[in-house]
Amino acid sequence: MNSSLSNAETEELKAFACTLADAAAEVSLKYFRQPVAVDNKLTDGGFDPVTKADQGAEQAIRRLIEARYPEHQIFGEEFGRKQTDSPFEWVLDPIDGTRSFISGLPTWGTLIGLRLNGEPIIGVIDQPYVGERYLGWTTGTTLNGNPIQTRPCVDLTSATLSTTDPDLFTAAERPLFDQLLADSKLVRYGLDCYAYAILSSGFFDVVIESGLQLYDMMALIPVIRGAGGSATGWSGESPGSSGRLLAVGDPSLAKHLLEKTKAFDQA
Amino acid sequence: MNSSLSNAETEELKAFACTLADAAAEVSLKYFRQPVAVDNKLTDGGFDPVTKADQGAEQAIRRLIEARYPEHQIFGEEFGRKQTDSPFEWVLDPIDGTRSFISGLPTWGTLIGLRLNGEPIIGVIDQPYVGERYLGWTTGTTLNGNPIQTRPCVDLTSATLSTTDPDLFTAAERPLFDQLLADSKLVRYGLDCYAYAILSSGFFDVVIESGLQLYDMMALIPVIRGAGGSATGWSGESPGSSGRLLAVGDPSLAKHLLEKTKAFDQA
Repeated sequence: MNSSLSNAETEELKAFACTLADAAAEVSLKYFRQPVAVDNKLTDGGFDPVTKADQGAEQAIRRLIEARYPEHQIFGEEFGRKQTDSPFEWVLDPIDGTRSFISGLPTWGTLIGLRLNGEPIIGVIDQPYVGERYLGWTTGTTLNGNPIQTRPCVDLTSATLSTTDPDLFTAAERPLFDQLLADSKLVRYGLDCYAYAILSSGFFDVVIESGLQLYDMMALIPVIRGAGGSATGWSGESPGSSGRLLAVGDPSLAKHLLEKTKAFDQA
Repeated sequence: MNSSLSNAETEELKAFACTLADAAAEVSLKYFRQPVAVDNKLTDGGFDPVTKADQGAEQAIRRLIEARYPEHQIFGEEFGRKQTDSPFEWVLDPIDGTRSFISGLPTWGTLIGLRLNGEPIIGVIDQPYVGERYLGWTTGTTLNGNPIQTRPCVDLTSATLSTTDPDLFTAAERPLFDQLLADSKLVRYGLDCYAYAILSSGFFDVVIESGLQLYDMMALIPVIRGAGGSATGWSGESPGSSGRLLAVGDPSLAKHLLEKTKAFDQA
């Protein structure tokens, strides 16, 4: 199988991705703003909450994939990898932004990405409490079915910048972020995947993060690119094992920023 | 007129506060997630966006108050004070969290407070995009008509703490905040009034801020107190001219924290 799909195949997979998001929402909304049992994944005193909502939502998604496309690969945050020979791989983060979720904040999201031969081709960022579904593919992005686009922003001094938590950058990375922050007009923190949804809607201009996992990133990429934005690693490469993501709404600003991040990446 | 109201008077004023919120929402939602003209209030290079949404929403509210209660006092962020001899004063922030508003984030709110002889007796935190109306009065708080309560949390080490931006504390205040932050379990930033709504819903435990204006605070107080929380200045006084607000969901934790903030306040 080559790596391009017919329109009919794309439409079928987009519709299925939405079916997966519906199934996840049914679980996640049952637990949102309810007292939840919070386990602690870390043993070093850190705080990484895992809730029944995460686990239940991923199980619901995986069951549907197994039933419809049993040959497809799956990689999910909570239940790991199912490897097969298929060129298709679903990459799942049932609740991205668990800290916001357990705090009752409406800025978490369910991430459903589909890769074909390693390349992200369909992505969903679903925020069912607010009622927002961002669906991206190779040639477009919609919010609840309506096309959305990133906005023009040629200069960082007029940009709104976002990152989830500046403390997630390493000590070596932090000066680069601090410089971008100093040059930006406005900054917003704490948004996880929702920051990329807002960028894709044309209200943020730059989101930069590091330390991300594949399941944090794969669903975002088609949403950002389909809306006209740039989503790359810090050297301009396809985002992946570096865990570093630079999302920019205006590709001309991306080109400028990549000069800085590339120099850092290669230093 | 003394400072207690009959139930019928309270119900009438609560209903009217909701009418005001409806009128503000009609204006604010027209501008939310639309490209807006952003003026700049500051001349010192700072960034304080004022949008047509702020101004239009406050005008809509003021018109209704003038028509229904022409004798009441009004104090709004955008159009200042109307002083009369009435013991009633409406305190308005049509869009609290303007930075979030212009960034397309759903965590701004319309604040409508009513004071009687200086004491906040009714408050609304309205988030019309998500569809959440928090209404507080002297004996209760509801979210969309359903009673809500703060949660128990006797110790800071198990608390979720929030503040809009740590950089809004003065250099003198910052070490106090940093100590509270270090002792807390989880922190969330950037939420403006929405942080107090979440605390009142039982998902945050502490919100601490300084540099606030009366119109940032008055609507919050009945919401927090009606839900069972404590809302005071840092010395335990009624929040006001100090611009310092400490909101705590569990009154026993409030007592403990006030020992620290009071010592700071009086140093």
